[in-house]
Amino acid sequence: MTDVTQIELRAPYLVFIGDTDVPSFAKTGFGIVQWRRQQVAGQLRFAGNSLDLGVPDMDIQQAVAAGVKSILIGVAPIGGSVGPRWISVLAEAAAAGLDVVNGLHLRLEDFPEIVAAAQASGAALVNVRVPPPGLPIGSGNKRSGRRLLMVGTDCAVGKKYSALALAAAMSGAGINASFRATGQTGIMIAGNGMPIDAVVADFIAGAAEVLTPDNDPQHWDVIEGQGSLFSPAYAGVSLGLLHGSQPDAIVVCHAADRRNIIGSPQARIPTIAECIDLNLRCGRITSADIQCVGVCVNTTGLAASEREPYLAALSTELGLPCVDPMTDGCEPIVAHIRRCF
Amino acid sequence: MTDVTQIELRAPYLVFIGDTDVPSFAKTGFGIVQWRRQQVAGQLRFAGNSLDLGVPDMDIQQAVAAGVKSILIGVAPIGGSVGPRWISVLAEAAAAGLDVVNGLHLRLEDFPEIVAAAQASGAALVNVRVPPPGLPIGSGNKRSGRRLLMVGTDCAVGKKYSALALAAAMSGAGINASFRATGQTGIMIAGNGMPIDAVVADFIAGAAEVLTPDNDPQHWDVIEGQGSLFSPAYAGVSLGLLHGSQPDAIVVCHAADRRNIIGSPQARIPTIAECIDLNLRCGRITSADIQCVGVCVNTTGLAASEREPYLAALSTELGLPCVDPMTDGCEPIVAHIRRCF
Repeated sequence: MTDVTQIELRAPYLVFIGDTDVPSFAKTGFGIVQWRRQQVAGQLRFAGNSLDLGVPDMDIQQAVAAGVKSILIGVAPIGGSVGPRWISVLAEAAAAGLDVVNGLHLRLEDFPEIVAAAQASGAALVNVRVPPPGLPIGSGNKRSGRRLLMVGTDCAVGKKYSALALAAAMSGAGINASFRATGQTGIMIAGNGMPIDAVVADFIAGAAEVLTPDNDPQHWDVIEGQGSLFSPAYAGVSLGLLHGSQPDAIVVCHAADRRNIIGSPQARIPTIAECIDLNLRCGRITSADIQCVGVCVNTTGLAASEREPYLAALSTELGLPCVDPMTDGCEPIVAHIRRCF
Repeated sequence: MTDVTQIELRAPYLVFIGDTDVPSFAKTGFGIVQWRRQQVAGQLRFAGNSLDLGVPDMDIQQAVAAGVKSILIGVAPIGGSVGPRWISVLAEAAAAGLDVVNGLHLRLEDFPEIVAAAQASGAALVNVRVPPPGLPIGSGNKRSGRRLLMVGTDCAVGKKYSALALAAAMSGAGINASFRATGQTGIMIAGNGMPIDAVVADFIAGAAEVLTPDNDPQHWDVIEGQGSLFSPAYAGVSLGLLHGSQPDAIVVCHAADRRNIIGSPQARIPTIAECIDLNLRCGRITSADIQCVGVCVNTTGLAASEREPYLAALSTELGLPCVDPMTDGCEPIVAHIRRCF
């Protein structure tokens, strides 16, 4: 293999909110608090901002005193600006020795005030959308340990949420399992990971191999999926991730009311059976015994009365546990994994 | 679509050989002379080098007088060094106003002498391994014109050669056809193209869309393939290229004596029928009527007596023209394309 490793963040965290007051722009901050509450020391809001992650308010000085190691930008203000007040606070954090962690499209290196502060203190500037250097070409060599990959009938069907929920449910059931993040929000939640869609094309599978190295034979990596083999825009990412992940198992994620691929309205969403079949067929190239162990469906688009019959019919059709992880949890899939492995 | 375009080179060319005297290190130079002889004004060899592309020797001054617009590095000395004499000659060319075109892994911008010379004269420095900026996400929107993509059972099975040979045969038969390059050698031969495996993963399909934009309804793009859907290392590139190319037709390329995937000896080469089937299945996502129109086999690994029976049996099995383009040419495939379209 290689000495190249995934991105790693240092906890505990101070989550930066600043003046962003639109909850939907703070998905990263809410996600970190939801899934990794124990890593979060507090939040930093500008005076008068009522958006609240439900954790203690702190300024930089208080964060340092509380042992905080990193400040994470927990918001993505679409169309909003990263103003001078942001830069000033992030530079103050860097000067105090906190790593600055950024999941936005901007690069921290483009702000001289932050760069100078980090250089003086030795703090790291971490852009979680930037892959680590030196990634290898994929080898396809078999690795030890178990792996499960979320795959999708489309983008944005709940693959990250499902992987986090399944990893938590497996851990709760006494299985040694780790969530493996492949996108910027997942990386900020997990504290490590690989921004797979930002890797140069030749290295997609190799990056997935770095993300999920040899492990204990009974350990499970639960890998956040990206895109879909059926997406005209992103299928290449999905296939490289499938091959590099070498999954023993896949779980298909689907949105119940989606009819056409996001961004490509001329392309139809495949059936879940088609999605399983193509992923297993392609996945066998690096994992001969790959199997599907369940389906996670986002059913928010269905009427309340339709939800249970829909999932029950799907489960009968496929012979697999089919759940909405938001409402049902992932325990039926965990039980099925126990039976299969 | 977008205003982003592929890489474009300015002909005629002076092909730089320098002190490289190993013919296998000069594949790019030989390829340019073989396929685009009319674009090549001459070669530049250091005194005493007997390696000969079969074109006139020229120094920079003579090249300028002959109207040369670009100097192309026509060699890739593996393990060899790019010495100070190289830099000095390339800087002299840049100072004289010639674009400097580089397909090696180095970047011309890292040589201050070349950069300064180019800035003074206005010459361009072109690294053909570096994708153009601003590539879009793939849309999957249907484009006008016909497209044919070379796909492979593995890497390094003759996809570039086959595409060049088929495009030439189609042109020879009066079909309006253009070779579309997706790798550095192909780009230097074609004079334009897109280094698809160097694109960031999210933009593979979008880059292929930029490479093969709307065209006349009867025009054919003959697109150089990359990798293989069956390659554990590179399949993501291949799938993104397949989706972005929207091919009306594919031709499968295969090496008759290959048993295992290059670089992944644990992975077996698929049958040609399997390769056709998976490419058509995945390709239908952006090109509903995609079909396979032929097979190009590199038969150099077979005994001379085996060659014809092998191709005949394959042709019978698949119901498609099967040729070795090196020895048979591509005319049977051209004839089949005429029947199908």
